[in-house]
Amino acid sequence: MRSVERAAVVTHGHTRNVSSAVERLRSVAASASVELLDAKSDAAADIAIVLGGDGTMLRALTRFLGTGVPVIGVNFGRVGFLTAIPGDDLETGLARVFAGEYRIVELPTVELGLDGERHVGVNDAVVTSATMGRMIELGYAIGGEDLGVQPCDGLICATPPGSTAYNLSNGGPVLVWGLDAMVVNFVAPHTLHARPLVVGRDVDVVVANRTPDVPAGVLVDGHLVAHLAPGSSTIIHLGPERSKLAILPEQTFFTRYGQVFAPG
Amino acid sequence: MRSVERAAVVTHGHTRNVSSAVERLRSVAASASVELLDAKSDAAADIAIVLGGDGTMLRALTRFLGTGVPVIGVNFGRVGFLTAIPGDDLETGLARVFAGEYRIVELPTVELGLDGERHVGVNDAVVTSATMGRMIELGYAIGGEDLGVQPCDGLICATPPGSTAYNLSNGGPVLVWGLDAMVVNFVAPHTLHARPLVVGRDVDVVVANRTPDVPAGVLVDGHLVAHLAPGSSTIIHLGPERSKLAILPEQTFFTRYGQVFAPG
Amino acid sequence: MRSVERAAVVTHGHTRNVSSAVERLRSVAASASVELLDAKSDAAADIAIVLGGDGTMLRALTRFLGTGVPVIGVNFGRVGFLTAIPGDDLETGLARVFAGEYRIVELPTVELGLDGERHVGVNDAVVTSATMGRMIELGYAIGGEDLGVQPCDGLICATPPGSTAYNLSNGGPVLVWGLDAMVVNFVAPHTLHARPLVVGRDVDVVVANRTPDVPAGVLVDGHLVAHLAPGSSTIIHLGPERSKLAILPEQTFFTRYGQVFAPG
Amino acid sequence: MRSVERAAVVTHGHTRNVSSAVERLRSVAASASVELLDAKSDAAADIAIVLGGDGTMLRALTRFLGTGVPVIGVNFGRVGFLTAIPGDDLETGLARVFAGEYRIVELPTVELGLDGERHVGVNDAVVTSATMGRMIELGYAIGGEDLGVQPCDGLICATPPGSTAYNLSNGGPVLVWGLDAMVVNFVAPHTLHARPLVVGRDVDVVVANRTPDVPAGVLVDGHLVAHLAPGSSTIIHLGPERSKLAILPEQTFFTRYGQVFAPG
Repeated sequence: MRSVERAAVVTHGHTRNVSSAVERLRSVAASASVELLDAKSDAAADIAIVLGGDGTMLRALTRFLGTGVPVIGVNFGRVGFLTAIPGDDLETGLARVFAGEYRIVELPTVELGLDGERHVGVNDAVVTSATMGRMIELGYAIGGEDLGVQPCDGLICATPPGSTAYNLSNGGPVLVWGLDAMVVNFVAPHTLHARPLVVGRDVDVVVANRTPDVPAGVLVDGHLVAHLAPGSSTIIHLGPERSKLAILPEQTFFTRYGQVFAPG
Repeated sequence: MRSVERAAVVTHGHTRNVSSAVERLRSVAASASVELLDAKSDAAADIAIVLGGDGTMLRALTRFLGTGVPVIGVNFGRVGFLTAIPGDDLETGLARVFAGEYRIVELPTVELGLDGERHVGVNDAVVTSATMGRMIELGYAIGGEDLGVQPCDGLICATPPGSTAYNLSNGGPVLVWGLDAMVVNFVAPHTLHARPLVVGRDVDVVVANRTPDVPAGVLVDGHLVAHLAPGSSTIIHLGPERSKLAILPEQTFFTRYGQVFAPG
Repeated sequence: MRSVERAAVVTHGHTRNVSSAVERLRSVAASASVELLDAKSDAAADIAIVLGGDGTMLRALTRFLGTGVPVIGVNFGRVGFLTAIPGDDLETGLARVFAGEYRIVELPTVELGLDGERHVGVNDAVVTSATMGRMIELGYAIGGEDLGVQPCDGLICATPPGSTAYNLSNGGPVLVWGLDAMVVNFVAPHTLHARPLVVGRDVDVVVANRTPDVPAGVLVDGHLVAHLAPGSSTIIHLGPERSKLAILPEQTFFTRYGQVFAPG
Repeated sequence: MRSVERAAVVTHGHTRNVSSAVERLRSVAASASVELLDAKSDAAADIAIVLGGDGTMLRALTRFLGTGVPVIGVNFGRVGFLTAIPGDDLETGLARVFAGEYRIVELPTVELGLDGERHVGVNDAVVTSATMGRMIELGYAIGGEDLGVQPCDGLICATPPGSTAYNLSNGGPVLVWGLDAMVVNFVAPHTLHARPLVVGRDVDVVVANRTPDVPAGVLVDGHLVAHLAPGSSTIIHLGPERSKLAILPEQTFFTRYGQVFAPG
């Protein structure tokens, strides 16, 4: 890639590690004559640097969706599946990035339409019971075929980067980066038949709240964006935008995968 | 068993089927000279008759816990795992019950202690995130051994009758009636290590809310009984009471199990 | 599609239903002036008609791989996930097919290379312990990244049609027809970390037998094609050929999916 | 416990670590005036010392079943779930054991009857397809109730110590030591309904090979003990003998469980 002249900085704000990490970043940037911008700045950055974990990566990828600015992470969180550089390697890693040594992985997003509004998620869209301890009944149709009503706690539509998040906690498969697909997976389905399902682009998942008396919440990347009243429905599919995740040239999905899923 | 002289009646109240079912019950009771009592009556019943599904059975078993009154169900619900008599067989089934043709299965309960109060569940005790879309971190210790902190949506302790309910939706095993055990199972654990665990009587499960900023709800048989503030904890184990489930003499756990888990 | 002039017939040979089914097929073919060919014939057919279940469909799809002849199934088996026409609807279904009322779904295949030979599967390639009751240790690399050694009973690479077969029995996800992907899934992995993984085209899965003393068997679509001696390895990826599955115009993957995975 | 005068020694024979481990054991035994016996000796030992992993523990527990001799393990294997003393702590651990500082956990065994012969397993009994790549159809009845025929790779009945072995690899739950129960679990069931099932003492599991043309193998603790011809059946239940596992006084099931299932 082209070497970096201006970099936006994103931190999650309230970790003790961050202020020293920002100092270290400033020092590397100064050496490489890279100008650092605030993430909220309107000035165009060549790349966004995240100091944090997967939560901060998610926020940054969403912030820069559609801008063409790729996002690279230095891990100061727990798992850091989406980050490219371990915290200890900040200096060497960012020096390489500033010199243009990185590549961009484009990842599909998930788009949810409800009441004429659209919401785009980097990781996942979830329809879930809004009443603690109450199951909901979700009607669902995939690819135009009505698949009935499923009593459950919720339904997840996850992108490849989202597949290793909430989807995985609910028994769903891992989707490798590069796949133009999403996984449709129920949360605590109260039948014996439900299985995770992987669908491609241009497949609509329509989810309706069929519970007479329990409202559903609609979450995109873990944030509540709307409620789904009894009787109403939402459409979920892969979105037109792509997340631009930057990683070091020698890295692949399987580098991180191996560390997490095939250790020792 | 001794033949029945007085039977308490429990219905779930708002189903269209129930009023005709109650009529049919009255008719059978009259033929057998059985006096029908309201479930809330203080008069001693020989048995409680449930017209409904598993939810109503659960409520009735809880209502009569510690009273010595067994509970038998006529299924007007969906699955009816705990019921003994299909709705269509109400007349022949209850005539047999009134003549003393039934037997009692004693089932362990789950007891939860919190802030000096105790709560008893027929099915399960659940500690769960009280904020929609927010994971919680639960510290847990079993049998006196600290097992660390698990990021998850919740933790279930289920009795044998509860094992086929919410526990099963979360990948837990079925515990056969007769087993004096409970299953400890996480809801959407965000690690790769968690597995359902079956423990016996006299094993304490201590669950602590280790999330700094997310309160947890404590549910017993699906009802919210308390909150677990960040930093506080609760103790869960098998309780001293036993649910008294009445079934027809020829029935076993596997009769219903086969219909649900091994159809065709 | 163009109307049918010549149809190849494939049956699984030893079912009592088949001879009467063949009679019925002959009658429909005669009415539509369609010439019936033996499946082994070298004459070019417009379509292949299967009378049987998923096993016979699998055999027929393999037989006609690379020939351009699509395969349509009339179900005389148990599940019949790949068949388009219920046995009872043979006459009306085939009359439509002969009139050109069908469409073709192209499905990816799986290709396995070993000792200079290649094997192509419609459903799946499996590397499995060849000694009953003995676990094997499989080394594996995906996309060029070494992911270590996994003690297990075996490893499955399944196409979308194969995803609802052996992969599903081992907890893997369902891949919708249309997806150009395969699922990599362990059989009885003896660790806590293994999860099903969905990979796209051009991703190589290299599997090596790392057990000193247990040979592995290599199965393609359930047939043993080779052994994998201790120390040797095989490469598995999506193959260049596509299975040509014919279905009725109004049918989709979700038609059959709904009947099996979301009944009632 | 009483202090040890005579200890039987069991090793798995072909590990490079073992000869030095035996030397270290001899030295500790000499200091404590403990006589070491060969495991095959007929002389009565107070305890059996295993130098090895779970496989050697299993063999030793089986060898001493019914003799009253408890078995304690020093871990020179990989997981060592059943061992009490890490390899590095051999000297301090065995000095305590020889001084009587240990306690005994009694664990249920599994008993399998076939053709008038009985076989007893410490971990599990498995009925499995004897033909690589061929599914079998197993008829099964539990507690006298016929539960139909299940197409699958096999069926496992596992004791609590066996629950963390092959059962766990197949999605079964962990049964805590102390539970008088076994788990019944299918291997790769080809339906959507099968779930692991935990049953107590005095529950018979009858397994019949209902495949016309595929023989089944019967394995006890991983060793092939018989074949189950098409049409014939076997009975499996908890056995009258108990394994006597010795551990250090401060240890519980959850000590090892926490290290394996709740690390970090």
